[in-house]
Amino acid sequence: MGYHQAVKGTHLEALPYGRVYNFSAGPGTLPVEVLEEARDDLLNYKGCGMSVMEMSHRSKDYEAIHYETIRSLRTILNIPDDWGVLFLQGGASLQNAMVPMNLAIEGKTPNYIDTGTWGHKSIGDAKKLGPVHIAWTSEPSNFDHAPEDDEPNFSDDVSYIYFTSNETIQGVDYLRDPKFAPDVPVVCDMSSNILSRPMDLGRYDVIFAGAQKNQGPAGVATVILSPRALEIASQKDLPLMLSWKKAHEADSIHNTPPCWAIYMCGLYYKWVIKEGGLDEMARRAEKRSSLIYDVIDQSEGFYIGHAQKKNRSKMNISFRTVNEELDKKFIQEAEANGMKTIAGHRSVGGMRASMYNAFPVSGAELLAEFMKDFAKRNA
Amino acid sequence: MGYHQAVKGTHLEALPYGRVYNFSAGPGTLPVEVLEEARDDLLNYKGCGMSVMEMSHRSKDYEAIHYETIRSLRTILNIPDDWGVLFLQGGASLQNAMVPMNLAIEGKTPNYIDTGTWGHKSIGDAKKLGPVHIAWTSEPSNFDHAPEDDEPNFSDDVSYIYFTSNETIQGVDYLRDPKFAPDVPVVCDMSSNILSRPMDLGRYDVIFAGAQKNQGPAGVATVILSPRALEIASQKDLPLMLSWKKAHEADSIHNTPPCWAIYMCGLYYKWVIKEGGLDEMARRAEKRSSLIYDVIDQSEGFYIGHAQKKNRSKMNISFRTVNEELDKKFIQEAEANGMKTIAGHRSVGGMRASMYNAFPVSGAELLAEFMKDFAKRNA
Repeated sequence: MGYHQAVKGTHLEALPYGRVYNFSAGPGTLPVEVLEEARDDLLNYKGCGMSVMEMSHRSKDYEAIHYETIRSLRTILNIPDDWGVLFLQGGASLQNAMVPMNLAIEGKTPNYIDTGTWGHKSIGDAKKLGPVHIAWTSEPSNFDHAPEDDEPNFSDDVSYIYFTSNETIQGVDYLRDPKFAPDVPVVCDMSSNILSRPMDLGRYDVIFAGAQKNQGPAGVATVILSPRALEIASQKDLPLMLSWKKAHEADSIHNTPPCWAIYMCGLYYKWVIKEGGLDEMARRAEKRSSLIYDVIDQSEGFYIGHAQKKNRSKMNISFRTVNEELDKKFIQEAEANGMKTIAGHRSVGGMRASMYNAFPVSGAELLAEFMKDFAKRNA
Repeated sequence: MGYHQAVKGTHLEALPYGRVYNFSAGPGTLPVEVLEEARDDLLNYKGCGMSVMEMSHRSKDYEAIHYETIRSLRTILNIPDDWGVLFLQGGASLQNAMVPMNLAIEGKTPNYIDTGTWGHKSIGDAKKLGPVHIAWTSEPSNFDHAPEDDEPNFSDDVSYIYFTSNETIQGVDYLRDPKFAPDVPVVCDMSSNILSRPMDLGRYDVIFAGAQKNQGPAGVATVILSPRALEIASQKDLPLMLSWKKAHEADSIHNTPPCWAIYMCGLYYKWVIKEGGLDEMARRAEKRSSLIYDVIDQSEGFYIGHAQKKNRSKMNISFRTVNEELDKKFIQEAEANGMKTIAGHRSVGGMRASMYNAFPVSGAELLAEFMKDFAKRNA
């Protein structure tokens, strides 16, 4: 196939180590430099005689890695000293239970905004722990948009407001830091767009995010807590691993932390800082995503994006062609051209191109070219 | 110092990559071959174009790793098909809460055996979730032994029996698979001696273990469940990440698993199998630990072991000299001779030599020689 040859020459062969463009929604692509450093230090970290995976979590060598990782995240997001920064196990999914456990207030009702699969799952877990009010949902339109600030109908006794800043599966993003009316703690699952743009931290009380999309490998989640959230959590008496308070008091070394995953996040954060921080991450995200959305919009209906234009994610682009057979062909040909893991989630179908911080712009260029070519050949 | 020179020649310089003997109680030493394989495949796993850390957990490449890891553990421990094998986040510490959540029966009382720091911690978490009966404790003798099978005083309404097979901090091990009287589910925290000897699986209903001692890196815990335990757990309605049932139904891919840590466990398991399985692991543990216990017993009181002889751990040897000043000197000199992380836990003091499956016998030989020499110079 001529297309394959032509494209390989310009894009794919430029990738080192025989690597491919990995459009996975998570775990996702990591920076090559980060992986190289991890590889080089794998058997003997900086001359200390052992791997990061073998270090006692109470050793000076590991503590240096741990605290530098925390400091780097604080630097990137400008997190004030009186806020908490935790690195916890169990992914964002465990936070679905830990949020109500640590933040719910007796006699008040958690209010959830339901924009897709992740909001939905979080509501499911919260309901197991107490009553929940759903203040807004886009389920009737198959989760294709997010609300404006004044759209949700909050209850009279809001305990906290919960939302998902970017729905990974549907590719729906608020594209802003929403400001909802009630002055209550605001919780955000930011797993799939944290660190992808500058943000106004003051709009949030709890931000949590699995690392495996924009920050590092799977196996650790970051949890950022405002003084108000810490204050509420400090009054709970929970088992060790379910307590934000205990994690915060011990700087997340309340048990053996997932040392390697935290180390990898630390390398990733240093890479983000070196590359230019959140402004540069936002610039690249805009560049990558607009390449693909432009092809969709100019395809005369051959490609159909899932999200409404006002909420188009810059991280996860869910789209399809006019029929499932063509979708299948698209995925197969993309794979053959070095574009991996581009099938859509089974609940939405079609394709999903996830392009997080470390995803090279050249991969978006390749996909855009391929999409145009595929449309021409199959329209 | 002549000693340093002489010993270096015989032992330390034999270690590759400038590595040291790492006596850490966990995370602990990993096999060099395992680390080498991880390093070699770090940027492109077996030609698939990406790191294991970058793979979608739903991809064929990751699923192959995941299921092979489960199969290897089943092979090593001879786990029947109708038992569950889970790989969960949150370490053994999260299981301290998940055990009562998933296994407690309304109207019955969990019975705990308290042999040291870990038993103690587990009791603390269980008490937050319901009443607990302490059937036996060695606290009066500062946790220096474990009970015989008929010593614990169980309550009349036992829900389950819980014990810690090897107390990492105190270095106290049952050295057998206990058989307690009541026919109820038996739960064992086996974090620090799992895979170190053949065992009778039929004596247990729940075995859990953080990976970072005898199986892999930190960030994942293995949970092995009998059909009886699965049956009880199947009746609970818990949040996703706190449910054994949901993890079991999805083979631990109910959320994004800690892929890298599971991959490393898989490599570790293959190494255990290749080296000769549990019989060989037991032989090495016996060899390593008897080298050190022999020096202690022949030191005419210069070294004092913490555990009673009948419960001496083959994994963690807690010992001290006659005074704290000498302990400090011992630790400093050991460090200078390439024996790292040998200080005792603050709650016990003195020294602790942890030597798990991957710890080379040559390291125990070095420590034994050093101990004899140190005693001669300081007696």
